[in-house]
Amino acid sequence: MADFSAVELIIAKRERGELSTDAIDWLIANYTSGVVADEQMSAMAMAILLNGMNRREIRDLTAAMIRSGERLDFSSLAAPTADKHSTGGVGDKITLPLVPLVASFGVAVPQLSGRGLGHTGGTLDKLESIPGWRASISNAEMHKQLAEVGAVICAAGSGLAPADRKLYALRDVTGTVEAIPLIASSIMSKKIAEGTGSLVLDVKVGSGAFMKTLDRARELAQVMVDLGNDSGVKTSALLTDMSTPLGLKMGNALEVEESLEVLAGGGPADVVEITVELAREMLKLSGITDADPAAALRDGRAMDKWRQMIAAQGGDPDAKLPVARESHTILATQTGHLTKLDALAVGIASWRLGAGRARKEDAVQFGAGIQLHAQQGDRVVAGQPLLTMFTDEPERFERAEQALDGGIEYGNSAPQERRIILERL
Amino acid sequence: MADFSAVELIIAKRERGELSTDAIDWLIANYTSGVVADEQMSAMAMAILLNGMNRREIRDLTAAMIRSGERLDFSSLAAPTADKHSTGGVGDKITLPLVPLVASFGVAVPQLSGRGLGHTGGTLDKLESIPGWRASISNAEMHKQLAEVGAVICAAGSGLAPADRKLYALRDVTGTVEAIPLIASSIMSKKIAEGTGSLVLDVKVGSGAFMKTLDRARELAQVMVDLGNDSGVKTSALLTDMSTPLGLKMGNALEVEESLEVLAGGGPADVVEITVELAREMLKLSGITDADPAAALRDGRAMDKWRQMIAAQGGDPDAKLPVARESHTILATQTGHLTKLDALAVGIASWRLGAGRARKEDAVQFGAGIQLHAQQGDRVVAGQPLLTMFTDEPERFERAEQALDGGIEYGNSAPQERRIILERL
Repeated sequence: MADFSAVELIIAKRERGELSTDAIDWLIANYTSGVVADEQMSAMAMAILLNGMNRREIRDLTAAMIRSGERLDFSSLAAPTADKHSTGGVGDKITLPLVPLVASFGVAVPQLSGRGLGHTGGTLDKLESIPGWRASISNAEMHKQLAEVGAVICAAGSGLAPADRKLYALRDVTGTVEAIPLIASSIMSKKIAEGTGSLVLDVKVGSGAFMKTLDRARELAQVMVDLGNDSGVKTSALLTDMSTPLGLKMGNALEVEESLEVLAGGGPADVVEITVELAREMLKLSGITDADPAAALRDGRAMDKWRQMIAAQGGDPDAKLPVARESHTILATQTGHLTKLDALAVGIASWRLGAGRARKEDAVQFGAGIQLHAQQGDRVVAGQPLLTMFTDEPERFERAEQALDGGIEYGNSAPQERRIILERL
Repeated sequence: MADFSAVELIIAKRERGELSTDAIDWLIANYTSGVVADEQMSAMAMAILLNGMNRREIRDLTAAMIRSGERLDFSSLAAPTADKHSTGGVGDKITLPLVPLVASFGVAVPQLSGRGLGHTGGTLDKLESIPGWRASISNAEMHKQLAEVGAVICAAGSGLAPADRKLYALRDVTGTVEAIPLIASSIMSKKIAEGTGSLVLDVKVGSGAFMKTLDRARELAQVMVDLGNDSGVKTSALLTDMSTPLGLKMGNALEVEESLEVLAGGGPADVVEITVELAREMLKLSGITDADPAAALRDGRAMDKWRQMIAAQGGDPDAKLPVARESHTILATQTGHLTKLDALAVGIASWRLGAGRARKEDAVQFGAGIQLHAQQGDRVVAGQPLLTMFTDEPERFERAEQALDGGIEYGNSAPQERRIILERL
């Protein structure tokens, strides 16, 4: 491998230069091994955030992160493989009903998920509220479960894109999360190394998402779609609304509960719509164009798959879910239409109740979170319950309620009808 | 002290925001104590480099760095105090003759110096080539020497602006040296904490300097002059040429040698000119307007002060200086005028010969360096000696010579006469 100096590469990017393929390879390999120090990589991350990277550099960065670890290979499976990734939002429990739903059509779903950090929840935290369920399984167990059940949601092993694991933790504490080259390469290195045949990206837009505007979300989505297709993974993207929470329930066990409602053929319309749309997209990329995912939710096929998937990882699908010890309900203060119920405000409130963690080492409260009694756009009457907060520690209510300040607005006329799916790429 | 989050402050500066006085105080205090991590500070430094700071922020940053440590106080001395600071260049040994020269007029000079890093030399490294000389002395010893001799060149104690010490080391390895707010606050926090009554800044401009253009150098100088005067230190600045080396000798013992030539009334004209001009400026700020520094060089008064100053710190002014074991002379390849003899190229060659260090832990070779036989603008004849390289390790010659590639040019007509002093502020 060619030899470079970390300082010279940082200065090159600082001065809006382009980093060569060899330079990017060197940087990622030497950051993974510890030759390039955290303080050097964080300066580089800030320079990338402010000065950008072109498509070739992003492709090289993604390839270097994949090369930093192992690659999985599911080509020996009889079934096609498909996966989805969401850039994260408030109340975004879609992975839970979606994975068994798609698997119920004979498409294997190898979903490697993460934990929550900040105001967005993590799929693994949610599933761990199911007694007995294990997030960590070996590659061999994953392969076996995919062959037998066709659906896995588990933690990414430490062997997969270790450079990304290290860089992600660094970005989180250095104010360098919101860089499109870094977000795109982080997501896509793991998905490509995971070996899925196709991939649907759910890129969230709005106050509760990393991308606050449609333009930024579209840019991120396009970069990731290109990265996937260039690497032989059939990739498409939906841009979906994250200005207000998805569904009525936020928090770990609460989101499992709502997912079970959807798998039982019910659940909030927005959660059902996005689940069905993403399933249709995943099935289409796998060559199945005549499927009716909504029917598979209604007739129990998806629920059967869910039960198999949970049981395969030690979970008891019939166990009672954890419930918070304390609850506090907030009432509507006005009569009228709920013109604003801000995703970020609700996400932070839920986080402060104990559903999320402040530091990676922290534990989450499985029962903590928020249940909405009305969604944005609904008509409410002053004094009716607006939302209920749940936590094991009642001293958390005050700070949680403060987070809602300015996040709730009422109006006399109904707001424009909410569109969930904003664009397709 | 108000409480802040490092990540939120980094993001604020990343988004071109202004940091409040309280935020800057918090950041520097908590970086010094280790609560704010190196990787956070380097991301902040890159954000400052790329997005800038306004005058108020720079003033607050400087004040916070001063407050991170102790302040010296020379107000009990009978003599006025004056100091100078150079932003660093190639062959810049001016501090060596300048400090005793100014002291010979009864102005006390408390010069806290640093070591070389990269292609620019360090005053302490140069003086340490004098057998017995000690760079580290206590504050009490410094005070006593200033009262008795009137001249001190020594290492800054660890108590002075410890935030700057930590930040400077970090910037060096993270590509964040060349930021005007960081350079200005680093220099001025130490000079203000040092307690000098007046200060002359020698801001270098050109290939061998941090500031490559006159505009950037003027901006840096103006920021520093304002910082000094706002803090009660009478401060002025000269912008001086660093497109080609100062004098004929580069390297530690070699620069002491050339300084002794100047102190003996001889030496290269450019070194003498800048030494005399800076001395005149320092004396003027101390209220002495009728001095003739050139005469004090010629008649031995400055040399007498040098000998006292060196002896006071254990050095033997009569000791033979270290000499490199190997030398290699490069000949002029053309007849004509030397139209370019690039400061950066010569600086890097000298560094590679062993005069400088690659990492802070490295030792320098006292005898290593370069002696020029002609300066930029001189007429040379093909085959005449152009420069001689010195090192203890002959395997270094090849890489040193490579550094000169493109740094030397010949022409038929004499270039414009070189101006050393470009501007005064």
